[in-house]
Amino acid sequence: MVEVERMDLWFYEQSGPNLRVHYRVKELLEKKKTEYQELVVLDTERYGRTLVLDGAVQTTIRDEFIYHEMIVHVPLFTHPEPKKVLVIGGGDGGSVREILKHPTIEEVHLAEIDREVVAAAREYLPEISSGLSDERVQIHYTDGIKFVAEHSDAFDVIIVDSPDPVGPAVGLYKQDFYSSIYRALKADGIFVGQTESPWSNQDIVPGIFARIKAVFPITRMYLTCVPTYPGWMWSFTLGSKQHDPLDIDPTSIPELGFRCYTPALHQAAFVLPRFVEELLSSAEPNK
Amino acid sequence: MVEVERMDLWFYEQSGPNLRVHYRVKELLEKKKTEYQELVVLDTERYGRTLVLDGAVQTTIRDEFIYHEMIVHVPLFTHPEPKKVLVIGGGDGGSVREILKHPTIEEVHLAEIDREVVAAAREYLPEISSGLSDERVQIHYTDGIKFVAEHSDAFDVIIVDSPDPVGPAVGLYKQDFYSSIYRALKADGIFVGQTESPWSNQDIVPGIFARIKAVFPITRMYLTCVPTYPGWMWSFTLGSKQHDPLDIDPTSIPELGFRCYTPALHQAAFVLPRFVEELLSSAEPNK
Repeated sequence: MVEVERMDLWFYEQSGPNLRVHYRVKELLEKKKTEYQELVVLDTERYGRTLVLDGAVQTTIRDEFIYHEMIVHVPLFTHPEPKKVLVIGGGDGGSVREILKHPTIEEVHLAEIDREVVAAAREYLPEISSGLSDERVQIHYTDGIKFVAEHSDAFDVIIVDSPDPVGPAVGLYKQDFYSSIYRALKADGIFVGQTESPWSNQDIVPGIFARIKAVFPITRMYLTCVPTYPGWMWSFTLGSKQHDPLDIDPTSIPELGFRCYTPALHQAAFVLPRFVEELLSSAEPNK
Repeated sequence: MVEVERMDLWFYEQSGPNLRVHYRVKELLEKKKTEYQELVVLDTERYGRTLVLDGAVQTTIRDEFIYHEMIVHVPLFTHPEPKKVLVIGGGDGGSVREILKHPTIEEVHLAEIDREVVAAAREYLPEISSGLSDERVQIHYTDGIKFVAEHSDAFDVIIVDSPDPVGPAVGLYKQDFYSSIYRALKADGIFVGQTESPWSNQDIVPGIFARIKAVFPITRMYLTCVPTYPGWMWSFTLGSKQHDPLDIDPTSIPELGFRCYTPALHQAAFVLPRFVEELLSSAEPNK
């Protein structure tokens, strides 16, 4: 008699032509073509439920706290009193959840182009999307570029929590967009965006950084390690009109139930390895 | 006529049962069973020449500088005048190359159990193994545990640059070995070891840290991101008899042609994410 084993199901994310990261899959929960992209929700053995857009892992139950805490708490604690925050992209709700932990928050606006992402997050990723039902949150199903252009002097913090700069997200990395964000921010507003891996995306990171730097008087990159983003060493770039993220007083930061972020890490994350310093020093906006 | 395409050759490293990282292979340069392990040298498209022992990537031409600079320069700049340094493992020579950049160095001893690793590094990885021919270097083809036990009050710095704690390397993570290292160090000596990933190896990292802490009065973990080690967030643990790595004066550190390490990173690397702090606070030596 032949023993029948369970099907051995794997998903892989391709990172450039020469690297693939394979995850063992417990269950394929959803797979559909939305108006904008291919949306997949997997339950993986290693990372739990996992949102995949156009083949790229966006967020997983197990490691999402690293990315979401780092993209949110660094700019929000740099601002002395963030009340009104805009998130571009981020339809999974993880950034919104972290923003709502700040007691000064009065309004959070989420501009997500694909309502199917929000629907999938509500259905399959309740731990991540929980904040989306908060009464302080307004979801706008619209193009983030258009939404930002319609506002001026409106937000304390704008967070661009976007996919990689391919396909529909390309415009979210252009200088016109960063200028538009500058105008949509209040006089002491702060921008932060996820800006890819300074290890794996050395072809595009310097240009992105330079385009942000061309717009904001204070521009700084900080790093973390995201286990499910190929490249692993991951960057965020903060552009600020007045407040320098390195000027915060760590002792003033309250405890908000962090799992990754700490006041000391807020400052340490801005200390870059030499090769990243050099990558940025050569940056030109049009590259 | 059928067009013949080039063979599509891939190698993967398995990280636990549920994750695999696949690398496209240009060429298989060497594959042999040594007395101690399976030794493979690949030329990969993404990382160049790559040393693989028992299926685990040890070092690659493209990213080795991150690991080797961080394991060497943090302890060596913590010591005021390192003259005599011992490396356990590290037969590829990368740690030795970095140690030799310090002008105070008089003797470097390398205790590597497998002479085939050194031979392969000399043949295929000359950029990494270059320091092994320096006249200040002595290579001892012997068991590191035995070698350390034969010395007392002998070294300024001991670096354990070892494979994962499986098979022949298990003894390099035991408390007896750390006690033996303590005795082999001079009165102000410093130990550092690679201590696995606090992300992927949460089952073993707290125990390793606790066993080092049980021996050394000053014990601190620091982190970096190694792109070819699954887990990516990678830890080193430093144990010191007198000198605290956080007490160094960054302005006193000379420029030695770093590609990753910087004086500012020396201190920032010790700032741990909250979940790593919590992992270590629960550490017990016997776990």
